[in-house]
Order: sequence, then structure tokens, then C-alpha cells
Amino acid sequence: MGCIQSFRQCCDQPKNTNVRISLPAVCFVWQLAMIILFGFFIRYNAESDVHWKQENKNISRSDIENDFYFRYPSFQDVHVMIFVGFGFLMTFLKRYSFGAVGFNLLIAAFGLQWALLMQGWFHSLDPMDGKIKIGVESMINADFCVASCLIAYGAVLGKVSPVQLMVMTLFGVTLYAVEEYIILNLIHARDAGGSMVIHTFGAYYGLSISWMLYRPNLDKRLNGSVYHSDVFAMIGTLFLWMFWPSFNSAISYHGDGQHRAAINTYLSLAATVLTTVAISMLTNICWCWFCLVHIQNSTLAGGVAVGTAAEFMLMPYGSLIVGFCCGIISTLGYIYLTPFMEKYLKIQDTCGIHNLHAMPGVIGGIVGAITAAAASEGVYGKEGLKTVFDFTGKWENMLPTQQGGHQAAGLCVALCFGIGGGILVGCVLRLPIWGDAPDDHCFDDELYWEVPEDEESIPPILEYDNHIRNQAG
Amino acid sequence: MGCIQSFRQCCDQPKNTNVRISLPAVCFVWQLAMIILFGFFIRYNAESDVHWKQENKNISRSDIENDFYFRYPSFQDVHVMIFVGFGFLMTFLKRYSFGAVGFNLLIAAFGLQWALLMQGWFHSLDPMDGKIKIGVESMINADFCVASCLIAYGAVLGKVSPVQLMVMTLFGVTLYAVEEYIILNLIHARDAGGSMVIHTFGAYYGLSISWMLYRPNLDKRLNGSVYHSDVFAMIGTLFLWMFWPSFNSAISYHGDGQHRAAINTYLSLAATVLTTVAISMLTNICWCWFCLVHIQNSTLAGGVAVGTAAEFMLMPYGSLIVGFCCGIISTLGYIYLTPFMEKYLKIQDTCGIHNLHAMPGVIGGIVGAITAAAASEGVYGKEGLKTVFDFTGKWENMLPTQQGGHQAAGLCVALCFGIGGGILVGCVLRLPIWGDAPDDHCFDDELYWEVPEDEESIPPILEYDNHIRNQAG
Amino acid sequence: MGCIQSFRQCCDQPKNTNVRISLPAVCFVWQLAMIILFGFFIRYNAESDVHWKQENKNISRSDIENDFYFRYPSFQDVHVMIFVGFGFLMTFLKRYSFGAVGFNLLIAAFGLQWALLMQGWFHSLDPMDGKIKIGVESMINADFCVASCLIAYGAVLGKVSPVQLMVMTLFGVTLYAVEEYIILNLIHARDAGGSMVIHTFGAYYGLSISWMLYRPNLDKRLNGSVYHSDVFAMIGTLFLWMFWPSFNSAISYHGDGQHRAAINTYLSLAATVLTTVAISMLTNICWCWFCLVHIQNSTLAGGVAVGTAAEFMLMPYGSLIVGFCCGIISTLGYIYLTPFMEKYLKIQDTCGIHNLHAMPGVIGGIVGAITAAAASEGVYGKEGLKTVFDFTGKWENMLPTQQGGHQAAGLCVALCFGIGGGILVGCVLRLPIWGDAPDDHCFDDELYWEVPEDEESIPPILEYDNHIRNQAG
Repeated sequence: MGCIQSFRQCCDQPKNTNVRISLPAVCFVWQLAMIILFGFFIRYNAESDVHWKQENKNISRSDIENDFYFRYPSFQDVHVMIFVGFGFLMTFLKRYSFGAVGFNLLIAAFGLQWALLMQGWFHSLDPMDGKIKIGVESMINADFCVASCLIAYGAVLGKVSPVQLMVMTLFGVTLYAVEEYIILNLIHARDAGGSMVIHTFGAYYGLSISWMLYRPNLDKRLNGSVYHSDVFAMIGTLFLWMFWPSFNSAISYHGDGQHRAAINTYLSLAATVLTTVAISMLTNICWCWFCLVHIQNSTLAGGVAVGTAAEFMLMPYGSLIVGFCCGIISTLGYIYLTPFMEKYLKIQDTCGIHNLHAMPGVIGGIVGAITAAAASEGVYGKEGLKTVFDFTGKWENMLPTQQGGHQAAGLCVALCFGIGGGILVGCVLRLPIWGDAPDDHCFDDELYWEVPEDEESIPPILEYDNHIRNQAG
Repeated sequence: MGCIQSFRQCCDQPKNTNVRISLPAVCFVWQLAMIILFGFFIRYNAESDVHWKQENKNISRSDIENDFYFRYPSFQDVHVMIFVGFGFLMTFLKRYSFGAVGFNLLIAAFGLQWALLMQGWFHSLDPMDGKIKIGVESMINADFCVASCLIAYGAVLGKVSPVQLMVMTLFGVTLYAVEEYIILNLIHARDAGGSMVIHTFGAYYGLSISWMLYRPNLDKRLNGSVYHSDVFAMIGTLFLWMFWPSFNSAISYHGDGQHRAAINTYLSLAATVLTTVAISMLTNICWCWFCLVHIQNSTLAGGVAVGTAAEFMLMPYGSLIVGFCCGIISTLGYIYLTPFMEKYLKIQDTCGIHNLHAMPGVIGGIVGAITAAAASEGVYGKEGLKTVFDFTGKWENMLPTQQGGHQAAGLCVALCFGIGGGILVGCVLRLPIWGDAPDDHCFDDELYWEVPEDEESIPPILEYDNHIRNQAG
Repeated sequence: MGCIQSFRQCCDQPKNTNVRISLPAVCFVWQLAMIILFGFFIRYNAESDVHWKQENKNISRSDIENDFYFRYPSFQDVHVMIFVGFGFLMTFLKRYSFGAVGFNLLIAAFGLQWALLMQGWFHSLDPMDGKIKIGVESMINADFCVASCLIAYGAVLGKVSPVQLMVMTLFGVTLYAVEEYIILNLIHARDAGGSMVIHTFGAYYGLSISWMLYRPNLDKRLNGSVYHSDVFAMIGTLFLWMFWPSFNSAISYHGDGQHRAAINTYLSLAATVLTTVAISMLTNICWCWFCLVHIQNSTLAGGVAVGTAAEFMLMPYGSLIVGFCCGIISTLGYIYLTPFMEKYLKIQDTCGIHNLHAMPGVIGGIVGAITAAAASEGVYGKEGLKTVFDFTGKWENMLPTQQGGHQAAGLCVALCFGIGGGILVGCVLRLPIWGDAPDDHCFDDELYWEVPEDEESIPPILEYDNHIRNQAG
């Protein structure tokens, strides 16, 4: 008890927002560490190595069968989601657009390097030479990993310093890599679009951190949007919405796997839009108005929830049903749950990630478990089951019903890692050394950015203007 | 006459802008209907079904030959055009950006589901099991179909309620599917980029509806742009402009067909930009100023007009000529025709779709007819004619000159469906039950959206600011 | 001397900003010239010609092996960089967004047509029929060529008229084609991502022009940003940042070449972000603030600098090192070099292209030379060296060390063409006939554009609002 007491006292010291030394130090040192670790561990894989072409000729394989051509278009779409999608989705705050887009870029750029290492150690360490071999699939996986940290950023948007964000990303990526290894390799759950691995984990990680960093006296004057910042946020929404089919299909297996994952996601997202609009208007009891926040966020819930099951034979109507339910649940979450969580659970969730990622992620895990358990040889065929669920090697004798159980176990692991990891990292972030904003300067770019002065009204240079007008007239 | 009289009276009742019940009802019921119809009718096609991989092994075909890899990158580009392109192109109004982007998303999300069904019934119903089989090409076609409804939305932007838009989309998609079936299958016209099927039909559909919904007392104070809303609209313009080569090549035949369609569109669009700029400045007689509206819209006309002929051997200079002419005609349309149409024809065309889609679409149809009629075995080769114009089956003995006639017939069908369908649907939409805006609240987001308050000036918290300044200094 | 004297006098006559006749004339005449030249010279290449499919059947080659499927996704990414990336990056000025995006579109649309011709004459003239054969690779190369002119535009942004821009583009593309031919074909340097050919040349071309057009009395009131214009500029930054891997890999050789180029660029850019952030904060000595200008620009330097070596075996850690250094150098450039250049060298560089393109481009050339010289058969294999450095034909007996020398020679040629060409073209542009802005109207859209009035506050129509409120309540 005394220990907790003294930790509290330590944390409640007056805040110092100065990150002038700490942030550059963190950036430099960590980037140097990355260079050294990359030097020791990371090499090109067979398909990006210069010997590929030669080998190709030997086995008379076409150049187009390089994995690059299977996955690079999807990779670029995922990349846009990470940087423009997540970045601009968070620009809705009236005075935090620089922080939203800028810090998003910073932590994603760091996170993807660290993710290449962490995921490499767990997944693609070559036993022959002890090196990690990277290719286009590694880049997609690194972007996925970063996505979970950016989701977490959504919960604490405007309330943390860039140094805290870097720390959060460092630990987030580490936890992600471990959790992903446990879920995908040890438990052998399937999760093509990352409903569990990315969204459930990322959202609960962020929410737990936000709970640890609860600010009872938060100044909310700047926690709102203006007209144009809302339109900027729609850029983020739309790029996420449009490219989600690429997200869910990016690392599915070649051919029909990617094809089916894209179709399922496309349909699920379409259904979500209609129910989001319906609920948004229905629940604005007094006025017949939409709330743009719902359109900005809840319309995306269908993409999250269809992630795990995207490459399964979910059937087109199944995707629509998933989207239908998620639009309802997510919008209701924004209306009822977010205020409740803030008031009673002391969780301040700036972007409402609980409604956009946490709940739909859990739904996605459950849908995946059910779809897997219900898989039958009639629908998939013997070979199909093997391909889709990867019933090979030591998992050769798995049954779909067992697979359903493993999926459910995977979901629990994601939840535990998210909540547990978030609480631990939250403890670290409460230390008063990270330069986070005081309560009355949250959601304000002026704290960390050189913000241009407001649009002054420039008096027209009358003589000159008259001059051209006369000349032209 | 008495019937029309009473219809008029019925329509001229005072308006009720309340869509609190009707919109959620429409969204829920229609989405439920979609789920049920998808359950009965829609299944994965062979290339997105789990059995594809197995079958692949049997005939030793590479995974990369899945249609997904031929078309998915183009699909994503088209998808961006539909949601960001059309959505942001309409944000130019100073106070209708939420409506432009939000309703665009709503009707596109509904329209694409309904399009999958309607187009499926006409084109890809499997006679074996009575199911519609969908794949990536179906998704592109659904997006195309939605495009025609979004074009129509451009004419009535800011003057209709979301319920009216949903009704307009329901009928628009239905008419589109029928018209497309007649033009492509019965008449056997070719229309890769949809100059006739999408643009001519969509634009005249929208213009006819706008004519039926003519508002003599329209309040135009909000029918204009502000500086930043114009920049937002340029996002839409640019994404349409850049991805138009993908639009026109998305469903061309594999290989040289897609390749050629992309080149032709690329060139045509480039030429359009130069003539648009020239005409825009020439016709601003008094001042040497450009009008951004022309840059936002007319620069795209070349892409529309090259649609039908994009996969033909139009030749690079042919594409440039098409673009050259369209830039001139479209810009002149904005300057002279739009005011004329509003004053004398009672057609209020908010976005000027007559100049961007209708005229270039008709030109595209004519160019297609001429290019087809002029096709010779010398240029195409015997096999080439067969491939490009699909002279197979019962059309085996077609001659290029005949094909030219069929193309012209197709154009007429598109026009008839557009105008006729628009007038009918316009009648329905004049009923006073749809909750459209009164004349003095058009072009105003406040009617349907919760609009954030204007950027208040937040007084800097002086003590704190001085604190950090002192600390740092 | 007398000659120079009279040239000066001629240039110092009072300016006439009227481009009412000259710009339309230039656009029309040049576009007509393009049509005629395209008619004489440009045809589809084998892969976009209608006979490809037939030939395909003969040699039983799959449709997917059309170059279109290897390069089109990258082409579209490059296209986005040219139009949205460069266009929006320059919207940061508070009152020059229309000019940034609009003129960018204009000169790119002209430049790409002229580039197809110029590059075609040098590279792909078919000796059989004297025609230039174009395909998807030609389109990428044309976009690349245009990129160099848009980089040059960055230096003179806001200070030149659209007619001057057209002239600058005409000469820029011409010089580029010659320089590219010398560097790639005569000197046989490799430059996949164009560090030398595109960035070094383009930047020094623009800087030299800016030096020739030095304005001692430039009015800087409008040479700054406002909050939302900075957010718009971030759209440009992010699309450039995200798609740079496609830029550097777009014309690399099929298979592992494109794959490796993408990976190297991805890593280099990530490292740049961290050092940019670190330096940006470290050097703001008094305040702990970031400058968004650095984030907007310097984060991209890593992509420029890795261009030449992207397809070499640079190794992942090598890419990180390049990015690490470039972030530092580029950011320091913005802080110390740009003011120095303006004050002492009389070079007014609006967008700071010296820091974003010139220095990183030169670094890229040097890195390329070193990497090439250090290439060994141990790393590349005998075949690999041949493929990567194209040691075929008359270059069969080249050694990597020699290649390093050739790379360095290529860099010198790019520098000479940039500086020399820029000075010559600058002389032409100083003539007082081009309608450029007077010193006190630079950076102002009002000079060439019809700018909408500022957002007036529209009084709510109270009666009506109360009406719905009562109705709903």
C-alpha cells in the first residue's frame, strides 16, 4: 500500500511540458538502435533478393509470380489507411489537427521499424543464418502492428505528449508481437483482418492507458470540432472505408482467399452505413439531425467486425448481417456508452475507439469463432478446409468445431493482453517525466507546435487593384 | 387534366422537413430486404469460391491468373472515385459539405447493394441454381451503376432530402440495370467506360428530376463557395482526374484492352486541361481571371468523352482531339448554357452536370459510334475485331459499320431512359411527403446535420503560457 | 556589356500582369501542336496494341504478363504523387491554394504530353517506321519528367505567372529529356528513382530560375500559412510519403527489382521522420515546439536520397542510414540554409526545394555511386550484377567500380543541366512580357483567380428554425 501511495505522490507532482530534450533524445537513440539492430538482423527475403531472378529462370517461373505483384497494391492501400486514414480521422478536433496528423506519422514511422524486428524474431527468423528475412508481406504486417498502436492513440488523443506516444508505441508493438505469436502460432487461430489481434488488442490497450491517465479536471473547451475540421476528418473516414477491403484481404492466401476477403468486407461496410445513419437519426430524439461523428466512425465498424471471418465462406448475406448489427451497436455506443464510460468508469475516450474498434473487434472474434465452428466439408471441400484453416503439419487432424474453440481462445488472449498491457504501460506513463499537457491545455496544438497566426484580413492594395481593373475594363 | 391539377395541388402543400421517422425506416427496411434478397440470390463466383484453388491445381494454373489480380487495383481506384471523387467534388458549397460527403456515402452504400442484385439478375444469373455469382467485376459494375446515381445527385445537390435521394437511387439503379442490359446485351453496343450507359443516362436522369423539382423561389445565398470549400472540392477533382484511366479500363478485356483504355484516357484528360484553362480565361471578358469552377469540373470532361472508345484503336492523337474539343464545349457550357437552362428551361443544375457529364457523355457516344464504324481489318486484324467488338456467337457476322449503327442506337436508348425515367421519378419525388428543404433552407447543412459552432476565439491562458515561456527562455 | 545592360533595361520595365490573351493563346497553340505531333509520331506499343492478344495465343503466354499488370498500380501511385502530392504540398500558403493546385495541374497536363514526345524521340523511336511506341512505362516516365518541372515550380511558387510556368515547363521537359538520355544511355548510369535525373536536375533548375528572377522588394505578408492551409499541405505530404516506394520502384526491373526498391524506400522514409522530428525540436532553441514546415517537407527527403540506389542491394540498414542522415540535413537546411540563401545568394526558394530535393538528390547520387562501386559478385552473383547494372551489350565488361564512376559522372551532368538550363531559361523569363505578379501581389490568388468572398455570417432564419424546433420538441 505504501508503495502505491508513494507512486501516486510521485505521479501527482506538477507537470512539466518540456519535451525539448527528451523527445529528440528518444528519436535519435531509438533510431540509432534500429539501425544497429537492422544491421545485425534484417536482410531481404528470397523474393526481394537479387538472386530471385536467376532462380526464376532455372525453374521457368514467370516474374509476375513474385509475391510483390500479389500483395503490393493491397500494401499501398493499407499504407494509406495507416497514414491518411488514421491520421485524418483524428483531425476532427478544432485545434489538434497538427498533432493528429503529425504525431500519427511519427509513431507510425517508428512503430513499423520496431514491428519489423519484433515480428521478425517471432515469425520469420531464418534458422540457417539467424537473420530476419523481409518482403512485402512483412511490410504489411508491420503496418498492421502499427495500426493497433494508432487505435490506442485514438483513446488518448490530445492528452499525451509525443514522448509518451513513443513509449506507448514501443510497448504496444512489443506486446502485439507476443500476442500475435500466441494467437496465430501457438493457439492456431486465424485472423486475416485482425479483428482480434489488431482491433480488440489495440482498443483495450488504449482504453486501459486512458483509464490509468484519467484526468478528473480535463478542460473540454477544445474537445470539439469546427466545420472544416469535420470535413478533414471525413477524408480519413473515406480512405479507411474505401480501402478496408484491401486491409482484410492483404495477407489472406493467394487467389480466392484475397478475392473473397475483399468481397465480404465491401458488403459488410455497405450495410453498416445504412444502419449507422438510421440509428444516428432515430436517437437524436428532439431534432431530426444526424451527428457527423457517427458517420465518421460507426460506418467503419463493419470492416472491423468482418476481419477475422473475411477469408472464410461467410457468404455475402452473412457479411451484410455482420455489418447491419455493427452499425447499430457502434452508433448506440457513441450515444450511450461513451458518456457512461467517462462518467462511471473514468475512461476518457477522445475518439470513441471503444465503439469503433473494441466492440466490433470482439464481435469480429465471435463471428470468426462461429463461422469456423460451423465450417463443413460440404461448403469448403476437404482441400478447402485445409487451405482456409491451415490444417497442416501438427494441426492436420483439427476439426472445424475445435477451430471455433481456438478462435474463441484467441479472442480472450487479445483481451487480456490489451487490458493487462495497457494497465502496466499506463503506470509507466503516469510518471511525471514525460512532458504531457496540463489539464487546461489538452487538445491544443499550441503546446507542441508552432501554430500560424489566424487568417488576418489583408487590406486589398486598392491602387493596384483599380489599376488592373481599369486596364482590363 | 384534372388528374394533373390535383397532382399539382397535392405537391404544393406546405413542406415538412421532418425525416426523423421516414429515413431510419427506409434505411432499416431496405437494408433488411437486401439481406433477405442476398440470402436467396447471391453467392461467390468461381474465382472467389474456396474450390478455386483446388481446381487451379488440377489444371496447373497459377494463382495470379485469378481475375482479382487483373482488376482489383482498378476496382480500388474506381472505389476512390465514387466515394472521395464524387463526394468531395460536391463539397464546394460553403455550407453543404457534410451533406455532399455524407449523403454521397449513404446513397452509394445502398446503391451498390441494390446494383449487385439488379445487375446480377440481368447479367450473371447462373441458370443451374438460379443464383447470382459475384466477384471483383461485379463490384466494379456495382460501383459504375452507383456512379450514375451520384451524377444525378449533382443536379439536385442541396435541394432534396436524404429520403428523396434514397428513392432516386432505388429507381436510378433499377433503370440503369435495364438500360444497360438493353444497350450492352440486346443492342450489342460496346461501352467500356460508360459514356452512354453511365454518364449520359445519369446526367439526363438527374437533369429531368431537377426540372420536375424546379423551385422558382430558390434562395441562392448559400449557393456559392468559400475559399477552403473550393480547395476541398479540388481533392474530389484531382482524385477523379487521376483515376479516370482506371475507370475506363476497369472492365475492358484483359491485356492490351485495359492497357490501351488507360493510355487513351490519360491523354484525353491531359488535353482537356489545356483547353479548359484557355476558354476559362478567354471568356472572362473583363478580367484576366480563371474561374475555379471550370478547373474543378471541365477538366474531367475528356475522361467522360473517351469512355466508349477507350478500348478501341482510337490512336493517341484521337484521344487528344476528343479531350481538346470537350474542354472547350464543357467550359462554354458552364459559362453560357447553365444560366440559360436555369432561366429558360427551368432546370436548376447545382453542380453543372450537364456540362461535365451530359454533353461529354453524348460526345463520347458519338465518338464511339464513329470509331467503331471506321474500324477496319487493316488496323485491328481479323482476331482483333472479334476481341474488341465481341463479334462472337450470334453477332459473328457483324460488320464494323453495323456496329457503328448499334452504338448510335445505344446512345439513343441511354438518352430516352435518362429523360423518361427522370421525369417519372421526378413526379414521385414532388409528392410532399419526402421532407425536402424549403426554398430558403436549401444548400444548408443545418437542416439535417448537427453543425458545430463556429470557431470561437479561445483566449490564451496567459499565466500558463508565460510560465512555459519563462521556463524555456 | 552593353548587351547585358540593355537586357536589364528591357527587363526592368513596369510589369503587366495581363495574361488574358497570352495564356489562352499558349494553351491552344501548344495543344494543337501536340495533336499534330502525336498524329505524326505516337502509336501504341506492342503491349497496348490490339494484335498483342493474338500474338499471345501463338506463344501461349498468359494475359497477366502484359507489362500493364507489372506497372499500372505503381503508375497510379506516381500519378497521385504528381497531382495530389505536389499540388497539395504547395497549398500551405494562406492565399495561394488555387494557384498551387490549379497551375500544378495545368503544367503537369501539358508537360506529360511534351514529355511523351521528347522522351520518345530519345528512347523509344521505332527505327522500322519512325514512330514512338508508348505504353504504361512511357506514362510513368512522362510523369517522372513532369515531376522535375513541378519541383522547379516549388522554388518560384507565387512569384510567376501561368505563362511563365508553361514556358518553364516546355524548356524543363526538353532539358530533362536530353539530360536523361545522356545520363542513362550515354554515360550508362542507373537511376531507378531519379535522385539525379529528376530531383537534382529539377531542384537546381528551379533554384537557378528563382535566382534569375530575384525580387529584392518582395512583399512577404502573404508568404505564410494559416491553420487550415497547413492541414491541406499535410495531405500532399502524406500522399508523397506513402507512395514514394511506388515512385522508386515504378520502373525498376520486374520481380525482385521492384520488390527491393519498394522495401528500401519504405525504410528510408521511416527513418527520416524520426530525425526530422528530433532536429526540428532541438533547433527551436527557445521553445519546445515543432515546426510543421519540417514535417511537411523534410520527412520526404529520405525517399529522394534513396532513389538511385533503391534497386541496388543497399540492405535494409543501409536504407535506414540514408534516411537518418537526410532527415538531419534537410531539416537543418530549412533552419539555416534557406534564410542564408535568400540573404546572401539572392535565391528566394518559396517551398524550400533546396532542402527537400536538391541536397537529398545529390546525396542520393553519391549513395548510388558508392553502392554501385561497392557491389561485389559475392553479394549480387554474376547474373545479378548483369541484371541490376545492365552490364549487357557494349557494357558487358564493365566493373562495379567503373559503374561507380559513371554514376558520379551522371550526377555532375544533372547538376550542370539544372544550373545551366535554369540560368538560360531564367533569362528568358525575365523579359517583361509574361504577365508575372508585381512584388506586392505575389503569393496572392486574387491576381489570377476569381476568389469567392469570405465566409459571411448568414443570419439564421429565425421563424423557420423555431418552427422546426417547436414541431420536433
